[in-house]
Amino acid sequence: MTVATPAWVKDAIFYQIFPDRFAKSATLQAYKPHHLETWDAPPTAHGFKGGDLIGVVERLDHLVALGVNAIYFCPIFQSTANHRYHTHDYFHVDPILGGDAAFKTLLAAAHARGVRVILDGVFNHASRGFYYFNHTLENGKESPYLDWFTFTKFPLHAYDDGQQGYAAWWNLKALPKLNTYNPQVRAYIMRVAEYWIEQGIDGWRLDVPEDIDDDSFWQEFRARVKAKNPDAYIVGEIWHRADRWLQGDQFDAVMNYQFTRAALSFCIGKKHAAPDLLSDSYGHVVNADAPAFAEMLEQVQQWYPSAITYAQMNLLDSHDTARFLSIAQNDKTALQLAWLALFTYPGAPTLYYGDEVGMTGGRDPDCRRGMVWDQSKWALDLFALAKQYIALRKKFLALRRPGVYTRLYARDMVYIFARQYQAETVIVALNAGQTALTLDLDVGAILNDGAAVQQEWSAQTATVSQGHMPIHVAARAGAVWSARQT
Amino acid sequence: MTVATPAWVKDAIFYQIFPDRFAKSATLQAYKPHHLETWDAPPTAHGFKGGDLIGVVERLDHLVALGVNAIYFCPIFQSTANHRYHTHDYFHVDPILGGDAAFKTLLAAAHARGVRVILDGVFNHASRGFYYFNHTLENGKESPYLDWFTFTKFPLHAYDDGQQGYAAWWNLKALPKLNTYNPQVRAYIMRVAEYWIEQGIDGWRLDVPEDIDDDSFWQEFRARVKAKNPDAYIVGEIWHRADRWLQGDQFDAVMNYQFTRAALSFCIGKKHAAPDLLSDSYGHVVNADAPAFAEMLEQVQQWYPSAITYAQMNLLDSHDTARFLSIAQNDKTALQLAWLALFTYPGAPTLYYGDEVGMTGGRDPDCRRGMVWDQSKWALDLFALAKQYIALRKKFLALRRPGVYTRLYARDMVYIFARQYQAETVIVALNAGQTALTLDLDVGAILNDGAAVQQEWSAQTATVSQGHMPIHVAARAGAVWSARQT
Repeated sequence: MTVATPAWVKDAIFYQIFPDRFAKSATLQAYKPHHLETWDAPPTAHGFKGGDLIGVVERLDHLVALGVNAIYFCPIFQSTANHRYHTHDYFHVDPILGGDAAFKTLLAAAHARGVRVILDGVFNHASRGFYYFNHTLENGKESPYLDWFTFTKFPLHAYDDGQQGYAAWWNLKALPKLNTYNPQVRAYIMRVAEYWIEQGIDGWRLDVPEDIDDDSFWQEFRARVKAKNPDAYIVGEIWHRADRWLQGDQFDAVMNYQFTRAALSFCIGKKHAAPDLLSDSYGHVVNADAPAFAEMLEQVQQWYPSAITYAQMNLLDSHDTARFLSIAQNDKTALQLAWLALFTYPGAPTLYYGDEVGMTGGRDPDCRRGMVWDQSKWALDLFALAKQYIALRKKFLALRRPGVYTRLYARDMVYIFARQYQAETVIVALNAGQTALTLDLDVGAILNDGAAVQQEWSAQTATVSQGHMPIHVAARAGAVWSARQT
Repeated sequence: MTVATPAWVKDAIFYQIFPDRFAKSATLQAYKPHHLETWDAPPTAHGFKGGDLIGVVERLDHLVALGVNAIYFCPIFQSTANHRYHTHDYFHVDPILGGDAAFKTLLAAAHARGVRVILDGVFNHASRGFYYFNHTLENGKESPYLDWFTFTKFPLHAYDDGQQGYAAWWNLKALPKLNTYNPQVRAYIMRVAEYWIEQGIDGWRLDVPEDIDDDSFWQEFRARVKAKNPDAYIVGEIWHRADRWLQGDQFDAVMNYQFTRAALSFCIGKKHAAPDLLSDSYGHVVNADAPAFAEMLEQVQQWYPSAITYAQMNLLDSHDTARFLSIAQNDKTALQLAWLALFTYPGAPTLYYGDEVGMTGGRDPDCRRGMVWDQSKWALDLFALAKQYIALRKKFLALRRPGVYTRLYARDMVYIFARQYQAETVIVALNAGQTALTLDLDVGAILNDGAAVQQEWSAQTATVSQGHMPIHVAARAGAVWSARQT
């Protein structure tokens, strides 16, 4: 099978937005419900802060200034959960977000600025208020939609202590699992998928797709979506190795939490990580030295067809994890190293909202704090660095195109790799150690003698001689060089 | 205040449809849920039979043949109750009915045939699955929409045995009462009202409007609706005398259950009525002789401004009562007499689906049986009579225009009245007694000597002489005469 992924993803810089927490427009004030939490108060399991999509429109400047050109939105459909993973209506944008009209405005504004938009598709489970499920809460065995879910015992106990009586995600009562083996349910979900593509979205991030354990389902999903828009991106939330879905007939990519794990293991290391903030979902974080890190990174590249690798959604954290900076116990050097890896590695880098200005946050829901818009509270050094690294990625096609990836050095805590595309070579060094490294780096495999090498963000140049070039990398820092040869 | 009601209602013949039970289109078969009750099985509290709006389109011929030119639909919005009085989404037509697309088709088809459509507006209460209520079931005190309903005690017990903790209609857990004192809730409902008028409906029947005990609410409702369409009809479900709402600033009419009560009391009488099938909601049904019946009928006319009286929605039964024929213990003569009153009385006559072919049914839900489409099971005599009486009403402007209403005779069990408009006079006799009546009727007050009087559905003519005309009315039957004088 030929594996094809959307071309635009190779150039994508994603920004993940948790809609209730990103920005709130004054223009929607009158439409907002009254009982909202204070923006700056710690997030709670059930409270809403009232972010909306016009707020996002008003902050597009921030994203564009950063260099972002794609947004991944956590769910925006009508839902009675602040994270909106409990869908109440798949065909409407949540009223608190400004509803369908606000989304239309957002989509037009984003596209006008060259920013693509992908939405979160939550198709494994719905909510207790979802019409097709609520039918059975209201009507019991007389429900016309009995076969849309899996009911095991009546009477149901959806909101009280008894055994709930229906299949639910992780057995959580709030999350009744759709019976996707029912052709009507399947047709319904496929129609949702198509409908939003027709409205102009650029793709789907799929929530817990592994829990719809049916290849034919996702094959049909892909076919239906791509028929509407061959450029639509389909990225699954699979935390582990994901070959099953990445053969070209299901997803274009997965959320690359294996990259996350590698970055955590090397740039922070288990020993320095906040002990309670690591997730088991991506596997154990270890204390990785450079060889181990190289192994982890390069392995991920080898698992999948190249078209997939270059379309992966790479990330350091998300709404489902503690923030990287908090796991690093506020060691900015860890984040800086991880960012350099993120923005130079094959696959689309993804920033979780606020990371760019140094926001912190523990596990869910703490990682979902209200975005800090008071610039006096920003880590301006981090913000500058994020912009710098994004600009770097945009400067070099070699960082965005399938080309040659070469490990140049992996010893102790220093990993150096090169990416090459046509005449372009970019060399990236990551020194996660506590000591600086000065070295005559062997580049014989990738550069000819005499090649002129320019260090980025520096006046420093070097010439390759006898297959080597002199480099210096400070402790807990990275460095980047580039060369062109014809 | 000038009292104005829509002109078209004077010519309206309403037909009330209970959407789940009227007709089912084969064209929607594939979209229907699988767990439906058999069409002919006795209705249950919670089961669905799967009637739909394309089914109504396919049966418009039946309505038009009958002479119907307006439909009152029981609720059609998305709801998880078979009667759909528990609204789940006010902005969408229920999927089982064929959704928004089917309604659009229906509205166009009905309008093309000169049939108007009014919808049931259920604004006092919503349902447990309604997004704005479900928010609080899901989030408790953290709900952003706490003030959309009246919450009294947490945790809520919406689906289990505890005290529910919120205001509900008749304290029924399934029917949380909207807090219409919240300006946001009010704005929401007003928007619903406007939205469907914008979609082309011809008016609103208002469910339990008395339970929104706020004149300013209904005044605003009227203003908003009439601003969108001055011809929109607003008819409230008020079972008793309704002066409060009928001053010209709230409703155009009410469902005239006081007419119902009069018809039951005279045409059947308490003594012959099925004892368990009468409703207390319209007040006690009595054994009314003709003077009592005359009093009841004429009183109702005097309560309200004339423009209201001629716009009333007169009815013999509905989805909320046992069917008239069943209350009459299948005595067709009672229904025939009541029909003659209904179709000759001031106000818009309303047939409850299936009454025209002799359908029977006890109290809710039995009065909501699947419509009988097998003509071999129709009472063809009744069907012919319904058509005949509707044609009669259409033949004479005097039966449809505000003119002069005169009691001519009310003794024992015979009530005779005349309606006059311009040159037209129609005389209607209702003999609910067991003996025929032959009489020289005093018509001196309404007709000149020498006036030629034609008996309807008969070759019989008479001439008024010395202020009298000879008439004969069979036992348990009616008779109609007309005259034109210049």
